[in-house]
Formats: sequence, structure tokens, C-alpha cells
Amino acid sequence: MRTLKITLAYDGTRFVGWQRQAKGESIQGLLEDALARFEGGPVTAHGAGRTDAGVHALGQVASARVTFAQNPATLVRALNANLPGEIRVVSVEDADDSFHARFSASGKTYRYRIRDTPVADPFERAFEWHLPEALSLDAMSQAATLIVGTHDFSAFRSVGSDASSTVRTVTRSEWRHSAGALTYEIAGDGFLRHMVRAIVGTLVEVGRGWRQADEIPALLARGTRAEAGATAPPQGLFLVSVDYD
Amino acid sequence: MRTLKITLAYDGTRFVGWQRQAKGESIQGLLEDALARFEGGPVTAHGAGRTDAGVHALGQVASARVTFAQNPATLVRALNANLPGEIRVVSVEDADDSFHARFSASGKTYRYRIRDTPVADPFERAFEWHLPEALSLDAMSQAATLIVGTHDFSAFRSVGSDASSTVRTVTRSEWRHSAGALTYEIAGDGFLRHMVRAIVGTLVEVGRGWRQADEIPALLARGTRAEAGATAPPQGLFLVSVDYD
Repeated sequence: MRTLKITLAYDGTRFVGWQRQAKGESIQGLLEDALARFEGGPVTAHGAGRTDAGVHALGQVASARVTFAQNPATLVRALNANLPGEIRVVSVEDADDSFHARFSASGKTYRYRIRDTPVADPFERAFEWHLPEALSLDAMSQAATLIVGTHDFSAFRSVGSDASSTVRTVTRSEWRHSAGALTYEIAGDGFLRHMVRAIVGTLVEVGRGWRQADEIPALLARGTRAEAGATAPPQGLFLVSVDYD
Repeated sequence: MRTLKITLAYDGTRFVGWQRQAKGESIQGLLEDALARFEGGPVTAHGAGRTDAGVHALGQVASARVTFAQNPATLVRALNANLPGEIRVVSVEDADDSFHARFSASGKTYRYRIRDTPVADPFERAFEWHLPEALSLDAMSQAATLIVGTHDFSAFRSVGSDASSTVRTVTRSEWRHSAGALTYEIAGDGFLRHMVRAIVGTLVEVGRGWRQADEIPALLARGTRAEAGATAPPQGLFLVSVDYD
């Protein structure tokens, strides 16, 4: 047996998300099917982050234990030949047998993009949230810095998510503005289900003037999902990279 | 009656092309339908360039004669509300009654993008041609300069196209390389059907070493379509802009 570390980029638009579901095509399912062709039997691929339907990845990482012997460069080509064009294997590496894409991860970076021009960009509509209104970047940036730190993020997760702890450490949370797009980047040791989209939705409400930046600490302290903002739509979100120590 | 000059950007992936066809959705058809809603009757929209199925536009221009009175800013919003997200009206202006998007045009610029990295970019696959092989940019650039000038472009057009003259003047023809993408830009007073894609397909054959750059003048002189290269696929092509004196 060997353990593979597989890095993938994908356009998540038409998939049900990373995770294999009873219905619809998932990235995990398609990757496992491609691996199974070489293995001659079922293969389980564990993903670092369970991206939701419509969410994209620039650097998702999966681990899989297999017995076949092809070298990494051959596997990149062969897996891509067996995957739809929306999913590309960027690299394959041999890893320690203890490597697990999710449990070994020490951190992740996500990016969320908003287009604030009056007219949407027809080429980017599957990859950003179009909000043709005046958003205060100053207020959103101020609120973003208040997300940094170790907090209970219960106010920013999907009701019904089953994580054993809701405490996470965010190490970076910042907005940039360039070429008509507002880009939010957040890095941390882990993220609860819908956490990034709930944070973005809340920061946008600050940018719209519907709420104040200095409400963030109280939202975190009270931990009530309904008090925070709406969940931002999936298509603006990218899993950028996964860190391993 | 007033004459509108309408500038559009579109992702042409799922359309039959600019021109209205018996079957399938066309950009012209959808724009005319949106205009007809304001006019309360049929409207004809003339496009500057008849982009083919799968070809995109950053700055297509259409003209239309209408009687309704809404101001341009209102029309941008209202037309976009009546068009699918792949098609965006970028601007609407009132033009002279003599203005015709096609006949008044003095020049056009097209762009064609090729991705030459080993792995395709899953986010750009609808907007570029993926050619994961070594292409000689030097040879392609040398061949590109030989396209510039006034020539009979019969060797680079679709058989069956019905233009009355096949002589066109190309004022710019050049390649740039940046961030894993080879971008070709060509400007001229007009283009025959499939002309840009036939030129790109031929230049790529030069880049692959299948033919020599200095064959271009002879190809132009003989004017035989079958002697030039294959037509490049549509998804890499963008109508960038249309010039009016």
C-alpha cells in the first residue's frame, strides 16, 4: 500500500459539492471512480475541506491509500484523462502512510470574491457574487479584523452542523479591492460548515451600513446564528490552499 | 425614431452565435426580444461582427432603430434584467440615424487565447484552447507579422462564406505570453468568416514546427483554404472591440 497526496483545482458549479451524495456528481465521487479504475477495486479519497455545491477550489487536497504503482507524473495525466474538464488534478505526491488530507491539515485559506460594478462580468458570474451597490470597504475591513483570533464561531455556522467543537482560530481576515472586485481572504486552523459564507454575508451587511463593524465581538460572544448575517451565495467561494506542517 | 448604439459583452458558450437561427438561442435573438418588450413590436438589431457559436465578446456593438423614450442608463439596467446572465449590455448610447453597427465600423480587434501549461485551467476552459505542448513563440510571432497588410485572405476563410470581396487589411497581428497563456491579438478593417480562427490554427502549426513561418506569403498568394492550417476551436476567440471613425 502507498498513500497519495492529490492536489486538485475545480470549478464546482455543476457538482453537489466535494462529498459523495446519494444523487448527483461529487468531486470526491468522480476522483474515487478515476482512482478505482487503476486500483481495480474501490478507493476512498479523503478531502481536506468539504466544499459545498457551487464552491470552487484552487488547491483542494485529497489523500488515498492505493496499491497500484504508477509514478506521480503518469497519474496526473491519467487521472485528468478520467475526470471531467471542470476538475483538474494539479499534482500527485507520495506521502507518509500517516498522512490524512483532513486530519493532518494544520490550516486552510479561503477566498471570496464580490463584483461591485453596476454591470456584472458575464465571464465571472460563476465565480463571484455580483452586488451592484456601494459597499464601505473601510467598514468591512474594520469588521474583518475583529474576526481574527480564537473564538467560538457558533454564530457563523450552519445550524445542524455536527462539529464536536465550535472553537476555531482565524489567523488572517482581510479585504482587498482591485479591478472592480472585492476579495476577502481568510486563513485559519479550520472552518465550520458555511462559516466563511456566514462571515462574508455578515461583513457585507456591515459594508451596506445595515450593521456596525463593532457588533462583531458581541455576535461572536453570544454565538447565536440568527443574529449574524445571511449566508453569502456559494459561487464566490474558493478553497485556495491547505497547509500541512 | 431614434438609433441606439448598444455595446455588449457575452460568454458565447451555450449560444448558436450572434446571428438569429431557426433553432437555438442567439445573442441577436435574445437582444431583439429584450428590445421588442420596450418597443411593443419587433426590433432588428444589427451586430458589428457575426460571432460564431462558442465565440465570446468583450465589446460587440449592435445598432437598432426604436421609438421608445427611456434614457440610456435606464435601458442598460432594463435590458440586462431581460437578458440571461451570459449576456450583459455594457452601455447604450444614442447615435446618428446614419449609424449602422456593421456598415459604419472602420475596424475590429479580436483576441485568441491558448493555454500551454501541462494541466488545463478548469476555470478558463470555456475561454481558451488548451494545447499542452511546446509551441515556438518566436516562430509564431514571426509568422504573425507576415499577416499584417492588405491581402486577399481566401486561404483563411470558411469555404462557403459569401463576402463580395476577400481582400482585407490587417493592421496588427501579434502574440504575447504571460502567466501560462499565449494571447494573439489581431486588428483590421474587417474579417471574413472563420478568418481569425484559420489564421490562429495556421500559426499554431508554425509554432508546433509542422510548417515554416515564411510559408505565410505563399499561402496568402495562392489563396487555397486547404493549404492553410486547421480552424482553431471557437472557445478561445473574443471580439474585443469595434472601431468607428
